Amino acid sequence: MTGSRQKRVVILGGGFGGVYTAKHLEKALGRRDEFEIVLVNKENYFVFQPMLPEVISGSIGMLDTVSPIRRLLPRTNLHVRDVESIDINSKTITTSPGFRPHAHIIEYDYLVLAMGNVTDFRGLRGLPEHAMPFKNLADAVQLRNHVIRALEEAAIEDDDPELRSQLLTFVVAGGGFSGVEVAAELNDFVREVARNYRSINPTELRVVLVHSQNRILPELSEKLALFAQKILMKRGVEVRLNTKLEAATGEEAILAGGEKIGTRTLVSTVPSSPHPIIDGLDLPKGKNGRLITNSFLEVEGAENIWALGDCAQVPQRDGGFCPPTAQHALRQGRTAAGNIVASIRGGKRSEFTFGGLGQMGALGHHSAVAQIMGVNISGFIAWWIWRTIYLLKLPGWGRRLKVASSWTLDLLLPAELVELKLTGSMGITQEHFEPGEEVFHQGDLGDRIYIIVNGEAEVVREDGDFEIILAKLGSGEYFGEMALLKQSTRGATVRCTAPMDTLSLPKREFSMLAAYLPQMRETLESVMEQRTRANAQKSARG
Amino acid sequence: MTGSRQKRVVILGGGFGGVYTAKHLEKALGRRDEFEIVLVNKENYFVFQPMLPEVISGSIGMLDTVSPIRRLLPRTNLHVRDVESIDINSKTITTSPGFRPHAHIIEYDYLVLAMGNVTDFRGLRGLPEHAMPFKNLADAVQLRNHVIRALEEAAIEDDDPELRSQLLTFVVAGGGFSGVEVAAELNDFVREVARNYRSINPTELRVVLVHSQNRILPELSEKLALFAQKILMKRGVEVRLNTKLEAATGEEAILAGGEKIGTRTLVSTVPSSPHPIIDGLDLPKGKNGRLITNSFLEVEGAENIWALGDCAQVPQRDGGFCPPTAQHALRQGRTAAGNIVASIRGGKRSEFTFGGLGQMGALGHHSAVAQIMGVNISGFIAWWIWRTIYLLKLPGWGRRLKVASSWTLDLLLPAELVELKLTGSMGITQEHFEPGEEVFHQGDLGDRIYIIVNGEAEVVREDGDFEIILAKLGSGEYFGEMALLKQSTRGATVRCTAPMDTLSLPKREFSMLAAYLPQMRETLESVMEQRTRANAQKSARG
Repeated sequence: MTGSRQKRVVILGGGFGGVYTAKHLEKALGRRDEFEIVLVNKENYFVFQPMLPEVISGSIGMLDTVSPIRRLLPRTNLHVRDVESIDINSKTITTSPGFRPHAHIIEYDYLVLAMGNVTDFRGLRGLPEHAMPFKNLADAVQLRNHVIRALEEAAIEDDDPELRSQLLTFVVAGGGFSGVEVAAELNDFVREVARNYRSINPTELRVVLVHSQNRILPELSEKLALFAQKILMKRGVEVRLNTKLEAATGEEAILAGGEKIGTRTLVSTVPSSPHPIIDGLDLPKGKNGRLITNSFLEVEGAENIWALGDCAQVPQRDGGFCPPTAQHALRQGRTAAGNIVASIRGGKRSEFTFGGLGQMGALGHHSAVAQIMGVNISGFIAWWIWRTIYLLKLPGWGRRLKVASSWTLDLLLPAELVELKLTGSMGITQEHFEPGEEVFHQGDLGDRIYIIVNGEAEVVREDGDFEIILAKLGSGEYFGEMALLKQSTRGATVRCTAPMDTLSLPKREFSMLAAYLPQMRETLESVMEQRTRANAQKSARG
Repeated sequence: MTGSRQKRVVILGGGFGGVYTAKHLEKALGRRDEFEIVLVNKENYFVFQPMLPEVISGSIGMLDTVSPIRRLLPRTNLHVRDVESIDINSKTITTSPGFRPHAHIIEYDYLVLAMGNVTDFRGLRGLPEHAMPFKNLADAVQLRNHVIRALEEAAIEDDDPELRSQLLTFVVAGGGFSGVEVAAELNDFVREVARNYRSINPTELRVVLVHSQNRILPELSEKLALFAQKILMKRGVEVRLNTKLEAATGEEAILAGGEKIGTRTLVSTVPSSPHPIIDGLDLPKGKNGRLITNSFLEVEGAENIWALGDCAQVPQRDGGFCPPTAQHALRQGRTAAGNIVASIRGGKRSEFTFGGLGQMGALGHHSAVAQIMGVNISGFIAWWIWRTIYLLKLPGWGRRLKVASSWTLDLLLPAELVELKLTGSMGITQEHFEPGEEVFHQGDLGDRIYIIVNGEAEVVREDGDFEIILAKLGSGEYFGEMALLKQSTRGATVRCTAPMDTLSLPKREFSMLAAYLPQMRETLESVMEQRTRANAQKSARG
């Protein structure tokens, strides 16, 4: 099979590294289709990461930060799939199934690994359930929608000051470029649109940036970082240095040391981990689980495999390794493409020698910081340079035109305020609770049933000023079924007593399952009967 | 309570009728806040319905068809909630809970019902599960994403011609304005973007418009409707007249008479039903369940309640009733607002006497049909009038500027091709199958477990050329658990034998539930054991 077909280069990942490798390979193809290029990416678009935070405020259109890969790479075969596994012995990639449940297997002759890294909340209590990452377009759109939803709710929740303050507090963890840009855009956005909410007072809004080190933007010089911090604070962002986010629940961000910030919106850009597929490869890894390459971007311990971008540890000329930035990834793409062509045709390989041009970060409201060729620039000029450089780097003149026109309109028009809800998922939800927190309160509507994965809770009935503890619940037990089966409000309060993870099923799904899984229903009903009897006795005694 | 507060006008629904009522009420308010205006809508935006089909092709930005209600109505209190119930005796509205499970109750003195209607697939086999409605922004975005996904899948499904043809066939049911515009936009869009898919041949694309009557666009004169039909057909749309969509599965649209069209994309703009909340009101109803009003828009059988738009049956001067169009709804809003103010202040009520200006529909690609003041117009001029009128009617100059600039850019740039996937719902899915259809095939990946709600299926093992029927399954039984519990591929094929509705749970959710609902797991395991034993015996005998 392999002998009879063209040589095939397979690229995994459609970020800066992967897309620019394919682009330079296409250029090298010439007229003949000497080899085949396949790119596997889970989205059909390339994300222009540096502009992603602008999606939050809608200052550029939702789709303008991304470009369809098919338009950028007309001679590449794009597979919009997840990568399930890589087999370097049989030289095959298995991708996830599409409309029909068959796995697809793609054979390769040359492989490029450009899968980036992932934000990984594992091991941090409550973060997987309640913190939002900020990596791709879906994250940005979801954050934007969530923020608008929080404002809408705050506008009508006037009799619950605690909930109201949680809804109007926005916490961002991570003080690198990504976290700082998100905090700046989020802050600008909520302060601008809040004016449209008659019942929200601007002084009620809080945007908090939590950072574990003693200054933000470790990528930049101290002077520039301090300038950025001053600007953020002037605009109303609370900057918390030397502070680590340790845990989260649906209602609060919990800092190391135990301080709690009540919030319904928690974004975290840290910590990052290697992509699980890269992590699973039996190849030597460097710092942060990155693949070790030589200066030709060839992966150590493998043949005909190149790695680049955030998943690769590429040596720099002056010692050290390339930082994980777009400017490096896209230039690595050119080097990798050249070296692959050299492998196919024979020829001289070239080393990656780029040393970096500088760093830039936007701070919202026509302000930015930049360090270019050793020179510090800040304020409006930095912002203007930032815009111009990114505009020129955007792929395709069509996209440039659109973004330029959005930016122009943005100077004239108020921020977008539309919450784009896509229709209901019928979902099972995971939630984390900390001791003292209530899962639900006596008298609430019965909207879901909970299963305790681990941790503990107590069931409490309030009776005037008294509280009667009806039961203690632990791992594997469930609660909340009564109000659902009896179509009534909650008969008791359930309060967490030891850090607890739960799964919960909304009423509608629960009813469907209960109706068609007779065993489940019977079990539930008998448990309910026992509990009702036991509770009646306790209440009588209490 | 009621005596001490301001009079409150509550408007249910944020479409043309509701928003224009609030707008005219705000105008009447003057400087003093003589009465309070509350508007309840489940989205925080107003949808400019006539432009919604343009979202499919992205010829205007995704958010440009909608306007934030808060910006349109700065003096109205907006509640972004679902209406759960209306109690006309106690004069209260109950809305759905938000972040916390409390119901909100809103008292009213004057009530405006402007809830529109809904597309209702109940009673049509498989349509609730597999047909997509086209009513709001989420529907439009979802359709667009689904179409792009189908193209992406077709691009890599080259070894399954049946699936490939289903993926490249798009069926729209309903030949009124909405269905015709959707078919026209969908057709333009897929034919334009398919050029970016190297492995898709334009001749493989099919867009089918299914309509139950003998001509499309019953709202227009026959001549104009025939013109529209000719244009659609010239562009490649297959128009099927006198044909009713009867049922659907995940793989086909089933027409009355039994003909089946293999498709993975089925949109239906019919049939429409009254809003369930209106349906539940104990008030006299007219045709199609609409509320009967007098010419002052007052609801018959109730006091201080007005109804307008698609949920109201408003008498017309020359006999008959107002058609359900935007031009009527927004003018009814003005009349209703005037009459409410007359009720509050005392004064003369006015009758609704508007007779209609005409009808317009876009056909994509700079073409439209219009019937204005009795004159028929078609082609480019109609399209130009269509654009101009709608542009002027868009609320707010900001929105107009954005749409005008999008339209201008659209003349220069190719159609958007980005699939905006929002992150995974963890969902339970409902599916419908027809006899002969396979739920899954022996050897497929085990990706979900199924529960039969009603209908029948057989479990078949293929053994070379032979088929052994292992079991017959009916209502309440489940299948597909084996591959999930054993982490393997499907050991047998399951084929539908009588029209069947199923619920299914994806692997991930199933595993979570099975792990924490011990009873469920035990039951499943014992059923699995029995089945394995029985199957082994049958296979041995077979």
